[in-house]
Amino acid sequence: MLDSLGGKPDTIVALATPQGVGAIAVIRLSGPDAIPLANQVFHGRNLTKQNSHTIHFGTIRDGNRIIDEVLVSIFKSPKSFTKEDAVEISTHGSSYIVNSVIKLLIRKGARPAKPGEFTLRAFLNGQFDLAQAEAVADLIHSDSEASHQAALHQMRGGFSSEIKVLREQLIHFASMIELELDFTEEDVEFASRPDLRILVERLLRVIEQLIGSFDLGNVIKNGVPTVIAGKPNAGKSTLLNALLNEEKAIVSDIAGTTRDFIEDEINIGGVIFRFIDTAGLRETTDTIEAIGVSRTQEKMKTASLILYMFDLGDTDMVEINRDINKLENLGVPFLKVANKVDKAKTQFISELKDMFPDTIFISAGNRENLEGLKSRILELVNLDKFKTGNTVVTNIRHYDALVNTRQSLLDVLEGLDNEVTNDFLAMDIRRSLHFLGEITGEITTDDLLANIFSKFCIGK
Amino acid sequence: MLDSLGGKPDTIVALATPQGVGAIAVIRLSGPDAIPLANQVFHGRNLTKQNSHTIHFGTIRDGNRIIDEVLVSIFKSPKSFTKEDAVEISTHGSSYIVNSVIKLLIRKGARPAKPGEFTLRAFLNGQFDLAQAEAVADLIHSDSEASHQAALHQMRGGFSSEIKVLREQLIHFASMIELELDFTEEDVEFASRPDLRILVERLLRVIEQLIGSFDLGNVIKNGVPTVIAGKPNAGKSTLLNALLNEEKAIVSDIAGTTRDFIEDEINIGGVIFRFIDTAGLRETTDTIEAIGVSRTQEKMKTASLILYMFDLGDTDMVEINRDINKLENLGVPFLKVANKVDKAKTQFISELKDMFPDTIFISAGNRENLEGLKSRILELVNLDKFKTGNTVVTNIRHYDALVNTRQSLLDVLEGLDNEVTNDFLAMDIRRSLHFLGEITGEITTDDLLANIFSKFCIGK
Repeated sequence: MLDSLGGKPDTIVALATPQGVGAIAVIRLSGPDAIPLANQVFHGRNLTKQNSHTIHFGTIRDGNRIIDEVLVSIFKSPKSFTKEDAVEISTHGSSYIVNSVIKLLIRKGARPAKPGEFTLRAFLNGQFDLAQAEAVADLIHSDSEASHQAALHQMRGGFSSEIKVLREQLIHFASMIELELDFTEEDVEFASRPDLRILVERLLRVIEQLIGSFDLGNVIKNGVPTVIAGKPNAGKSTLLNALLNEEKAIVSDIAGTTRDFIEDEINIGGVIFRFIDTAGLRETTDTIEAIGVSRTQEKMKTASLILYMFDLGDTDMVEINRDINKLENLGVPFLKVANKVDKAKTQFISELKDMFPDTIFISAGNRENLEGLKSRILELVNLDKFKTGNTVVTNIRHYDALVNTRQSLLDVLEGLDNEVTNDFLAMDIRRSLHFLGEITGEITTDDLLANIFSKFCIGK
Repeated sequence: MLDSLGGKPDTIVALATPQGVGAIAVIRLSGPDAIPLANQVFHGRNLTKQNSHTIHFGTIRDGNRIIDEVLVSIFKSPKSFTKEDAVEISTHGSSYIVNSVIKLLIRKGARPAKPGEFTLRAFLNGQFDLAQAEAVADLIHSDSEASHQAALHQMRGGFSSEIKVLREQLIHFASMIELELDFTEEDVEFASRPDLRILVERLLRVIEQLIGSFDLGNVIKNGVPTVIAGKPNAGKSTLLNALLNEEKAIVSDIAGTTRDFIEDEINIGGVIFRFIDTAGLRETTDTIEAIGVSRTQEKMKTASLILYMFDLGDTDMVEINRDINKLENLGVPFLKVANKVDKAKTQFISELKDMFPDTIFISAGNRENLEGLKSRILELVNLDKFKTGNTVVTNIRHYDALVNTRQSLLDVLEGLDNEVTNDFLAMDIRRSLHFLGEITGEITTDDLLANIFSKFCIGK
């Protein structure tokens, strides 16, 4: 129950539910004084005399002033998320009330929790390892079946146990080789070099596989980046809105209305597509829009998919040809989307169909053929790969540690090839162990922990 | 435990915490099957065998697939908010998880709750009266000490008890007069007419006071509407942003950027000011902006306070004079705010100070003298009235019912003056009772209830 600096932990407080209006909000306290602190401001039963995992109705009062009627849940160490004494106060979901209660608890001696501090305490108190702690944040941000399953698998220890198995096998060899160091005079060999080579090669195969899963993991976690490009007024915002089924972008009849990127995630067939609406492609003298246009080209190069959208009533074959040529040079898969099909000339449509048979014809405004568009989008990504039951690396920190591990293991192999001395071999193996240990948190530094947990939300 | 249509209630489910990312989310179930339903999807202890007000750790599973690790709280009838059996499931705060769990519970037989349905059930099951139920929603939306205290006072029954006292006094007279109707032949008088007049006049004074409190109640609930007006580029958005301390409006160097009203609430000295940034006042040919400008004038007439803002580097005395004349004609209190004081000529500033000594000089961009501006804003509203300990009417439905009650009571007085027959007198008194009863819910209709609770959020 020590904090990362080795001090006695204090009692921390934070809102655990999202900001905003809801029926209820939950304020979380954790630390040695959590229960007596809550008891100081609670009017009802004496909280210090209640059993763990019980709920109590009463009021929170600041002196005589009632702040709210609440339910208080009691969790006693070690049977809580942080393994410390903990209290959850369920208030009416008003930010005024939440702020008043938190301020009151701070005045009574609690400290505002830092981002991720509850999970940090859970990790430091041995509730779970570091990769599992990180998965808690991923689980909260998961927004598709694929990302949810990957995060849950990791939180429940699936990923950690694979890493731990690899690490234990290496530890065995490391200690054998280090033992040999004590007998350097005698030229004994506790660790068979051929066996070590076989193990390292097996480890490398597993690690390569994990590294290779990161591309998929990244898309699972962050969504398939999909740019909607096209001339001003082609109907890009309208399409985005139709897909989102709500009005997040300003839509107007005036060309050049979309002035900034609007990113929104749409779940199509269990896969998250991160749609990026862009400023128009035309040349412009409008300062705001000019910024938008140059950023458009940047965004397009890093996309996994581009929807090139044009207005059938306001684009000719010359323009379409020119734009398509430009986009094909970017080397990103793209889909040609002809909009306002309800207002187009039959002649033009059939010309287009001859020239570009893979064009999708829609009417974003009338929500016509959006299902057809969605199917084609899904065809362009390989759905099967999202349905993997295997461990997938979704965390860039783990990816970096795996890449470092791979390099150290390759150094071990090179050492074996060159018949280097035991101390060099031992050093390379220890380095591999270090990097693997960073993933699950056997090896940590305060900086590393601070960096990881600062990315959590407050209250987690 | 009947629903408003008299049927046996089913079990309802909804998210009780706000949408969005947070550490945890709470899903609420209420109804006769709440506990067995939760037990069907929960792996851990048998929930049907647990005591009320206890908490249980386990997993929610859809068949073999784990959706999340959760805490489940059990509340047994009548010891719950709705007075029905109820369950709260505390999940990780991911909308994917929340949706998966709710969908699963619906598949097992729960029904998605309608807005306010939990509170409706609490009302129908006698947890509190209608005015108290309405205060639950007000409490959630309260965002200042004044609105919070008004809502809490009402939720805890303060307002209802005042209404009930009035109503009981009237009921006594009504029954006396109706008793007289049974003895019409005998010319008896159970209810003293002079006493009735004294009572009605006393009731009228109380009701007038409650009606009179509504202006204040409305401002307490919705904030003091404050318009920031001025030429394009005067710095209105910059000021709003500086006050809000965050970038909610698009700020740019191009005149006419602000295209729509941006309303934001800023708590100054415990009072909420609803600041309304407007499109510029200039004539314009830009379609979007033109809509904005005409709506500006509408907004200004209904404001409680106008900040007239001008750029010291881009406005001359002629313009300032003309604008101030225009605004003074609106009859709304206003404050002259001279912006960009850091870039202004000393000569011009001293001229202005001579002509309009009450001008506030600020620099919105540099956050200069914002405290001075806030103090002056506070001087223009009467702070004391926000610190009332009295009952304040904040709900327009109550206001309407009180106005109707007043009219009925005035009819009673007129009847007494004109010595109308007992049955007319009884009718007017009954009408007063009806309107008073609508406030606390002794008198309700399904339409009235549907209308009230449809304005609640889902999950409350």
